[in-house]
Order: sequence, then structure tokens, then C-alpha cells
Amino acid sequence: MRAEAIFTGTELLLGQIVNTNAALLGQKLAAAGIDLYHQVTVGDNLERIAAAIKTARERADLIIVCGGLGPTEDDLSREALAIALGLPLEEDPEARTSIEAFFRSRRRPLLPANLKQALIPKGGRSLPNPYGTAPGVFLCHDGKYYALLPGPPHEFRPMLEEKLLPLLEALGAGQQVILSRVIKITGLGESAVEEMVRDLLHRDNPTLAPLARPSEVSLRITAKAPSPAAAQELISTLEKELFNRLGNHIFGTDEETLEGVVAGLLTGQGLTLAVAESCSGGLLAHRLTNIPGSSSFFLAGITAYANEAKEKLLGVEAGLLKKFGAVSEEVAVAMARGVRLATGSDIGVGITGIAGPAGGTPAKPVGLVYLAVDFRGKLTTRQEILNGEREIIKYRATQSALDMLWRALTGRKA
Amino acid sequence: MRAEAIFTGTELLLGQIVNTNAALLGQKLAAAGIDLYHQVTVGDNLERIAAAIKTARERADLIIVCGGLGPTEDDLSREALAIALGLPLEEDPEARTSIEAFFRSRRRPLLPANLKQALIPKGGRSLPNPYGTAPGVFLCHDGKYYALLPGPPHEFRPMLEEKLLPLLEALGAGQQVILSRVIKITGLGESAVEEMVRDLLHRDNPTLAPLARPSEVSLRITAKAPSPAAAQELISTLEKELFNRLGNHIFGTDEETLEGVVAGLLTGQGLTLAVAESCSGGLLAHRLTNIPGSSSFFLAGITAYANEAKEKLLGVEAGLLKKFGAVSEEVAVAMARGVRLATGSDIGVGITGIAGPAGGTPAKPVGLVYLAVDFRGKLTTRQEILNGEREIIKYRATQSALDMLWRALTGRKA
Repeated sequence: MRAEAIFTGTELLLGQIVNTNAALLGQKLAAAGIDLYHQVTVGDNLERIAAAIKTARERADLIIVCGGLGPTEDDLSREALAIALGLPLEEDPEARTSIEAFFRSRRRPLLPANLKQALIPKGGRSLPNPYGTAPGVFLCHDGKYYALLPGPPHEFRPMLEEKLLPLLEALGAGQQVILSRVIKITGLGESAVEEMVRDLLHRDNPTLAPLARPSEVSLRITAKAPSPAAAQELISTLEKELFNRLGNHIFGTDEETLEGVVAGLLTGQGLTLAVAESCSGGLLAHRLTNIPGSSSFFLAGITAYANEAKEKLLGVEAGLLKKFGAVSEEVAVAMARGVRLATGSDIGVGITGIAGPAGGTPAKPVGLVYLAVDFRGKLTTRQEILNGEREIIKYRATQSALDMLWRALTGRKA
Repeated sequence: MRAEAIFTGTELLLGQIVNTNAALLGQKLAAAGIDLYHQVTVGDNLERIAAAIKTARERADLIIVCGGLGPTEDDLSREALAIALGLPLEEDPEARTSIEAFFRSRRRPLLPANLKQALIPKGGRSLPNPYGTAPGVFLCHDGKYYALLPGPPHEFRPMLEEKLLPLLEALGAGQQVILSRVIKITGLGESAVEEMVRDLLHRDNPTLAPLARPSEVSLRITAKAPSPAAAQELISTLEKELFNRLGNHIFGTDEETLEGVVAGLLTGQGLTLAVAESCSGGLLAHRLTNIPGSSSFFLAGITAYANEAKEKLLGVEAGLLKKFGAVSEEVAVAMARGVRLATGSDIGVGITGIAGPAGGTPAKPVGLVYLAVDFRGKLTTRQEILNGEREIIKYRATQSALDMLWRALTGRKA
């Protein structure tokens, strides 16, 4: 099956937002073995969306339109599909019911504009959307498939993964399967990783490509084969080799995050955690509490920005702050210990540093961060000098803290 | 002049990279007053690139092809343009010289494949590329303009800004300047905003379009005029009207964020803030401490996940937790008051709720959040029922808290 993607939105043409849905859709279709030969972006214009659909059906079996399902006047995808196929729009009772239920459950008034979202080209079916008010649409017409999905990424992703892809699979859409696996690495820089795998980087199938994010390096293995099993086999062989070389730094694969892996280890070992943050400003607590069920191990986080807060909330001695300064290994240790004792957790983490842009000195430059992990009194500490803008430094500080926790929980050396 | 953009690269179709060039090109063309109605992405396939060029010239005056200028076998844009226009490829001496110079300066050996990069469709000219080995191409044929630019973003951006745009300007391409302004709204849903400005949504120039992000609705004004001043004038008139209708909900414009505006108000009024979070898990502290200089007003944040932490760190009475439950208005108030007293801040914020996916009950569903702001003892509280996945609910809870702070600091009613 060959697919074509149409992205609607004048804001895309004006470059006011970056089209991340395009990349996600490409990945998911490739994994499903569905060829994607064209992506087209058009503005919120009825004629041009309809024309794009007509062009697409000439060269593809599956036309996916992304965006334009909202309640506003420039949400035109339903109308455009109806026009392109010469079908009338009809209200889908199921869609209407779910829209009404959505507003009732949110105790929000249902406006006439929202009912427009229940309209569907005759013969189509709605794809219920638990993540927003706009149901998706799926339609088979003249032997071609048409899908309309909502544009907001936090709705597009789950609607694609949970609604459209299973439907396509049920239709037996995929042939040559392209599978990828991302190997997630912590505690090594990009160039260090490349040195260790350079000889593996120019394979044809599977291919190996490095991906770098702030403080996280990943390697993507991509394999093409007639069946998922065969592609998986190609991937596994290379993956084993990577584990041999980088095992001490590989924390997970694919969608796994370092905070998710640490959360799993804490839950599995029945340990509790509390964190004391200064320069990272609550980001470590935020990342850990993004994990569903984190309440089972995460007791509390204290973001102690002011020195007084460090004294009052974490019991850091004023003398320590005066003698070594708030940004010091001693204070990081006192914060880790303080939050552990204040909450009675098994593990305490302390992070103090200078996120910038202001506040740096020659002796203590922007990016200097001290970290401490207090595991039932057993201490590990670390000094980092991180680069980047304020938010990057905050992120890298939390990444380093998670790396320390991961190593403490798995017994791995840094 | 109307432009069409063609992006080449199988990696784009497979979603292995996000197409940031598309957004940049859109911004630059809009600012140059050049209309862009279609963006098309095709893989590294000669026929399909050539076909895309033929389709584009039917509906545009300027066809910009991005990518496919490298030395490898799947760099096909030059050949595709030659085929689409029925022109032979010829070596451009200027291009050859600059390629040779590039390799000499890098002390790298010149490979035969690199000389392919000096080939240009007959009648075209090369756009020297100081940022890489692939020169761009510019060609006028049958009254249409064709431009080939390198794909790597660090080459694409300067080649676009320094080579192509000046050339288009010299050709008098941009008669009309397009400027936009985004009006940022808080405390109103998308459909509610739509209702209040419906009559303004069908203007031709300036246009008005709603944009929705989680818990934040914006309106974008886009104006087209012969000069920036004239465009600005069009924008200001509509902007005044929007302020008349929505002033009570407009917190800023363009890149301004709600946390940034709140931070500015706190700093300006010399007030200090401390936050007590449960379901938002530190995200409010994180968002506030992303603001450079936030240490001047942000004293501390306490993420009290466990009930014991709420008692110990925030002084929430066990009886209160038992009687009303952790997710209640009473506990939100106690948290706000507790963190204010614990830190001696002017303002305390309390957030408690159920972020899900687990933990919901019929009486207290996932998404139920209670918020409280204690401004030197003066209380405001709010109940929200938020939808979305865990992270969206966390974000929306912090957005609601920032909305309460913004109203408390500006004296605006909800």
C-alpha cells in the first residue's frame, strides 16, 4: 500500500510552527511497511486542500490529511474531503454523542461550532478522539482509503498510534517492513560513542546512525526486510554488538527515557526518592513525576532557590553556605542529606549550580553544577561544567543526576 | 510572485529527521512578501523529483528545490531539474573552481564525485556555497525561476539568506510584505474566543486566525502591504479591536509566555513567590525558574507528592487530609498557605489534583485539580477538570495557576 500525507495549516506555510507530525507519521508508516512517497503541505484553503486530495488519490492508495478538524472557520478538512470525493457531509451520531459527552464531562458549554466536528462525508466513520474535541475520520471510497487526523501533536500522535495504525494493520496494509531500534546511551559524549562504533556506521542493511540530544546520545539501527521477524533479526545482531561495546552506558531502547528507567528500578527495588534542587529549578521532580505511578517512589521535591530556603527547608547550615558558597560540593551533599532526612526517603539527591545567564564568576562560571546522591547515607558526588543556554543547563544537570541514580541503582561505574 | 517549495530526501519521508528548513523557508518568503501555497516532500527518486518540479511550475512562478545537491548517488536534484525542463547538464567553470578551492582550503582530496556538484542545467548559474561543497543553482526558464539549495540546515539557512533572497529582491520578487502578530490569550477556550471574534475571521487583509495549544489560545493577525510600516498599521488597528473585546484575557503578544509575564509582574512589584505542587510535580517551579533572573522573586517550590510530605513540609494537617482527601480545595488552600509561611514569601500557590492515568474515581476523576493562591493571606481558589494525558494535565494545571497569578497581580477578574 502506498500512502500520501497532506498537512493543512497556513501557519505551516508561514513557518510559524515546525511540522513535527510529518516526521512522526513517516516513522510510523515505515514501521508499518507502508510506503510514503509524497508529503504535501497546503494552507487553510478549501480549494487547495480538495485539489491536494484529488492529486494524492491519483498516486496513492491511502490519503492521510493532518489538521483542519477543529471547530473554527478555517478548519476545512472535512469539507475538502467531501468536495474532493463529491460526497455530502452528514452528522455522525456517534461523533455527536462523544462530543456532547466530552463537554459534559468537562462541564463546559457545548457551542454550535463544536457540532460541526461531528460532520463526516457520507459513508465514512468517525475515529473517536479521547484527547480532544475533534474526532478523526476514516473513509473507503472507490478502492482508496482516506483518513483525517487532528493536527495538534498531542492529539495527532495517539490518534495515529491507537486508532489509524491498528485499522490499517487490520486491512493488511504493510509489505516490505522497515524497523528501527534506537539504543539509548548515557554518560558518554557523541564523539566518544562514534569512536567506539565508527566501523559499524557504513553498513547498508541494517544501517546505524548516531542521534544527539542534549546530554543524551542515541544510536539508531534501521533494518529493511520482508517480515517484521526478519527485520528484527537483522537489528538484534547489530544490537548485541553494540551492547558488547557500550553496555556500561546503554540504559534503554526506543521510547525509553532515563527517568523512566530510573523510576522502574526504584519501583522494582521498593525504594523511595526525594530530590533537592537549586539550579535545576524543579525540572528533576517534573521529569520523575511525568512517569505514571511515580507516586509509589517519589516522596517529595524541594526547589530551594533562596539560601534561606536551603536552610529552612533542607537544614543546610548557614555556616556551610557562608564558608563554601551555595554552589559547592558541600552544599550539594547537605541538600541531598537534608531532603532525605526531611522526607524519610531511602535516597536523596542534591543539585546546586549556576544556570545563568547571569551569576557566573571566573572561579564559578555559568554551567558549574555540583550533584550529590545520598543512598541511605552512602554518598556519591559529581562536579559538572555544562554548556548551553539556561534551559539546556537545567536539563543537563537533571540528566547527570539521573545518570548518577541509574548507576547507583544498577551498580555501574561512571 | 508565488513560490512552491520541494524538499527532497528519503530521510524526511521516513521521519528520521524533522524538516526545519520548511519552517525557515516559509518565514523568510513571507517576510520577503512572496506567497508560498504548496510545500512538497519527495524521496531521493529522479522521476518523482522531476514530476514534482513539473507540477510546481504549473502553479508557481518560483520553484525552490531543497536538498539533493551532494556528491552521492542519491543526490539527484540537478539531474531532475534538467530532465523536468528538457535541458542538458553542463559543467559550470565557476562552480568547479569554487569546489576545487573548497577542498584545497580543507586540505581534503577532491573526489570525482564532487565534480558532479559543478554540473548545472544549461542556462543556469551557480550560487557559490561557502558553507559546504554543494553550490546552489539558479535558473530562469520560460518565465519561471528555479532555485536549488543544499539541504543541511547550516548550509540551507545562509545560502537562502545570503544568496537566494537578495537575488529575488533584486528581481523585484516581493512586492508585498507579510507581517504577523500573535495575540496570547489565557483563561478562555478556543471556541469561546472564536465566538467573540467570529465577525473578524473573514477579513482578507489583515487576516485573523486562531491557534490553540494546551490551555493556551492565541490569535494570529497577518497583514500584507507594500511596506512594513503599512503592514504594521493594518495589524495595530485590528489589534486594538481585539484588546477591546478580549483585553481581560490577553496577557501578551508574539513570543511572550504566561510565566514570563507573571515573572515580570512579580519582579516589577517587588513580590516574592513560593509554590506547593502535588499533581503538577514541580512543573510550575520549572517553568518559573526557566525565566532568567527568577531567583529575584522565586524563593522555593515544594513538590509534596506523599501525604506525609504535605504534612511535614507544608504543615497540612493530617485531619484535613483525612476529612477532605488530598485532592480538595481545603488542601490546596493549606498547601498555598503552608508554603508561604514556610518560606516567608508574599505569595503562595497550592496545586493538588489527579494527573492520571490511574487514581481517578467517579467522584474525583482524572483531571480534577484544585488550585489556591494565597496573596499575603488573601485567598483565591479554583477547581478545574482538565483533559489530556498525564503530561498535558500537569501542563494545564500549571497554566491555570499562572492564570490565577496573572489575574491576582493585574487585578483582573477570571
